[in-house]
Amino acid sequence: MSALDKLSVIVWNEFVHERENAAVRAIYPDGMHATIAQALRDTPALGRGAAPLDIGTATLDEPEHGLSEARLAGCDVLVWWGHKAHGRVDDAVVERVQRRVLEGMGLIVLHSGHFSKIFRRLMGTHCSLKWREADERERLWVVEPSHPIAAGLPAYFELPYEEMYGERFDVPPPDETVFISWFEGGEVFRSGLCWQRGHGRVFYFRPGHEAYPSYHDAHVQRVIANAVQWAAPRVRIADVCPMVPAIEKLSAKDVSFQRVGIVQKAGD
Amino acid sequence: MSALDKLSVIVWNEFVHERENAAVRAIYPDGMHATIAQALRDTPALGRGAAPLDIGTATLDEPEHGLSEARLAGCDVLVWWGHKAHGRVDDAVVERVQRRVLEGMGLIVLHSGHFSKIFRRLMGTHCSLKWREADERERLWVVEPSHPIAAGLPAYFELPYEEMYGERFDVPPPDETVFISWFEGGEVFRSGLCWQRGHGRVFYFRPGHEAYPSYHDAHVQRVIANAVQWAAPRVRIADVCPMVPAIEKLSAKDVSFQRVGIVQKAGD
Amino acid sequence: MSALDKLSVIVWNEFVHERENAAVRAIYPDGMHATIAQALRDTPALGRGAAPLDIGTATLDEPEHGLSEARLAGCDVLVWWGHKAHGRVDDAVVERVQRRVLEGMGLIVLHSGHFSKIFRRLMGTHCSLKWREADERERLWVVEPSHPIAAGLPAYFELPYEEMYGERFDVPPPDETVFISWFEGGEVFRSGLCWQRGHGRVFYFRPGHEAYPSYHDAHVQRVIANAVQWAAPRVRIADVCPMVPAIEKLSAKDVSFQRVGIVQKAGD
Amino acid sequence: MSALDKLSVIVWNEFVHERENAAVRAIYPDGMHATIAQALRDTPALGRGAAPLDIGTATLDEPEHGLSEARLAGCDVLVWWGHKAHGRVDDAVVERVQRRVLEGMGLIVLHSGHFSKIFRRLMGTHCSLKWREADERERLWVVEPSHPIAAGLPAYFELPYEEMYGERFDVPPPDETVFISWFEGGEVFRSGLCWQRGHGRVFYFRPGHEAYPSYHDAHVQRVIANAVQWAAPRVRIADVCPMVPAIEKLSAKDVSFQRVGIVQKAGD
Repeated sequence: MSALDKLSVIVWNEFVHERENAAVRAIYPDGMHATIAQALRDTPALGRGAAPLDIGTATLDEPEHGLSEARLAGCDVLVWWGHKAHGRVDDAVVERVQRRVLEGMGLIVLHSGHFSKIFRRLMGTHCSLKWREADERERLWVVEPSHPIAAGLPAYFELPYEEMYGERFDVPPPDETVFISWFEGGEVFRSGLCWQRGHGRVFYFRPGHEAYPSYHDAHVQRVIANAVQWAAPRVRIADVCPMVPAIEKLSAKDVSFQRVGIVQKAGD
Repeated sequence: MSALDKLSVIVWNEFVHERENAAVRAIYPDGMHATIAQALRDTPALGRGAAPLDIGTATLDEPEHGLSEARLAGCDVLVWWGHKAHGRVDDAVVERVQRRVLEGMGLIVLHSGHFSKIFRRLMGTHCSLKWREADERERLWVVEPSHPIAAGLPAYFELPYEEMYGERFDVPPPDETVFISWFEGGEVFRSGLCWQRGHGRVFYFRPGHEAYPSYHDAHVQRVIANAVQWAAPRVRIADVCPMVPAIEKLSAKDVSFQRVGIVQKAGD
Repeated sequence: MSALDKLSVIVWNEFVHERENAAVRAIYPDGMHATIAQALRDTPALGRGAAPLDIGTATLDEPEHGLSEARLAGCDVLVWWGHKAHGRVDDAVVERVQRRVLEGMGLIVLHSGHFSKIFRRLMGTHCSLKWREADERERLWVVEPSHPIAAGLPAYFELPYEEMYGERFDVPPPDETVFISWFEGGEVFRSGLCWQRGHGRVFYFRPGHEAYPSYHDAHVQRVIANAVQWAAPRVRIADVCPMVPAIEKLSAKDVSFQRVGIVQKAGD
Repeated sequence: MSALDKLSVIVWNEFVHERENAAVRAIYPDGMHATIAQALRDTPALGRGAAPLDIGTATLDEPEHGLSEARLAGCDVLVWWGHKAHGRVDDAVVERVQRRVLEGMGLIVLHSGHFSKIFRRLMGTHCSLKWREADERERLWVVEPSHPIAAGLPAYFELPYEEMYGERFDVPPPDETVFISWFEGGEVFRSGLCWQRGHGRVFYFRPGHEAYPSYHDAHVQRVIANAVQWAAPRVRIADVCPMVPAIEKLSAKDVSFQRVGIVQKAGD
């Protein structure tokens, strides 16, 4: 990929709250996906190697949820927001997304996406946590300032109104922990976590309750923009499980072994 | 759990090769599960905290594959061998096993079990690899001599006849790498890998092609016996995702926020 | 090691504050080491494999700081508290402790020990952090309830008065994160961290400012007692860097190579 | 850093073998540092974000080993080869290099540099291994094909003549394992390992015995070129351990606590 090649990004949103709830619609009139996509357009990339973006969106109600085989094949990074309608996401689409991640596609899972089928499938765990909706202040601390996802951020940033998520977050040990959140009500949460799965990168980012304007926040937008660059594919390798010939010459052997009486060799 | 409490272990085997193939039956007349179970009975546990074992077996053809809700509820560590019949394992049983692992049950996955439904589900990846059946010598190097699974082992041990598995092994980054294999034909493989998933421990151990007597080997038996002790549950915690009250008093706030014009606070 | 073998534990304390400051002495009349040692005697061990303890203490002013070659040779787990006098610890003793850890001895580093020579040497980093002394409430959240160091603990526990330590804590990525602290003043901290170094285990535990009675707290005592059991040696392996003969027969080769013109082989 | 900014690279070599031994000099007439530096000039960078390089060298016999405070201050990535003269490297220079790594500078340690003062100091372990000089074939397997250091490499590559290094390699658990080597004589070795220390990245790469032409090999050159790009600084943060004011208002408290009778609060 040359430095000029664009990254193809799809922002996926179930887009249910915004249509059913006027308060949410007031914050995100065109849906959270539209706000996030616009933020990605408006947030200048930081750091060497940052690629220009070609940004689209997709939602639950589109055919194949907007994630056809052909469209996903051309996608470099997928951003995922879901909450009420996890169960309505087609298993075939989930499997397709998983396969693309394992081939190298990046995946950014936001907030209540912790319970999405795709995230649970990639993690292999329940992905449960403690929660509370109480108009609460969240302060996100950067614990790895040198991580590309933290580029351009201060030592911490605050969100004045957020849903609380508390530990223990039931996910596999992350490869990297970028943010830890402090909540006004007394909890902590590992709120920015990185994993490699197959050849792809997965980032979970905590903020983004639909009832609050978190995706209008400049720091949150910076994190998502950085994460898209970080999750950009390095390779594209389809799954194979090949039978391969020996590289070295194998010795001739007596294979008329018996199950008893074999004395094995071992070393100090 | 007191030091005297027994660990309840189930050795699960699809038990197909042994009934269909006389050469395999000659090595494992009563099935690999019987050989492994007997080895666990005969291998004295090493190290502080080693518990006595209560060992049973289960196979594919039993009702619910021998893994009913009640039986799994009482199981501390499950050992898994499968190859030809992965697809015949019921998804409901797979989900049940996964839930028990996430609650704290240990899982030891052997050899061709890398492609079992339960292993792939817990890993979230394809779990593919390179392979070759060529009566080949494998030498397993201990790379973490202090790991409990390596207790009592020499610096390396050999298996004179094994199927080759080669890198890249498509699994998530392991928490610990206990063994790396050298193959006569020129490949290497991370052949003893540890992961925590939920509250349970998972160990993958490479050797054990059905056509070779690997489960009669004393070093292989030592590894499995050690792994059972290592994987013993430390807790039993059922999945919950609770709404919780605030611990600290929350400040009164003006929540008539607008999506624009919020000035966030951040720190150096 | 049999289940009946005792673990030999040394609680080391620089023992300066308690002698210079009446307020500290009021809390720890015989020194923090005495309080911690007594707590280890009084806290019943939890879990399978818990060993009885043989507990001693050592302080800075003793010859060789109470850590002679002979005494360290018989030590299984060393607990370390220091603050004002890090610079007075002899480099030869530090090197001796490091060598024992790499051989398999466990090391528990407490609170201001983050800046001790031995901890910085084992970590390879500065081990800096943010701090504040303000009689502040700390709440420690258990993020790995299945970890042996968390055995017997509730979901969180509080210390009403503690010094604040805040992120970023400049340590290498930990193997396991057992606790994360919430502070009243707004910070978070990874307050219980595990690393393996060589064949030994290292645990850092945050609480324990000398001006507060944290080591009289039952939860803190439980953590230290659990950590001692967790850090118990699994092996004892002295450092070697041996020249070894080939195991496999090496092929005869033309080694009259030139630096140019070599065509290497590679594989797909 | 803009995409056009050059990375400043220093290739450091003790430069002793080449002057004392005619056979080594025949392979590396101007020193290994000259060969590696020229290879970095000649190897086109791969991947998005690859920066042009400004390459210099430094050797043991220069004042301050060519690593003055001023020169290191301007260095982005340091490549290190040493073997016979580790003990002659000045501790003050070692500490300077360590401080720069912790601030964000990249460090690539080659082959016998595993025993260098700087590597051992950053690792905190002995860094021992098994070894043998026997004109032996080494095959390096790529275990993380998506890692930037593996860009452009085949599934494996071979070196026809190398010194053998065998496990156990006494280093801390790596963040990432990029290569594992197979040796003709029967050993394996984790031969490409990544760690973060402070804000800097460290990569250890195994090949490069002075008696063999490994640094003339195109695959080896590709790895070092990739590693330089991977290790490029993301930040530059000097060490501080600041006292900080509280962000949140602290409650007024009775601090006339006594060491007994405090009842702590804890939660489920």
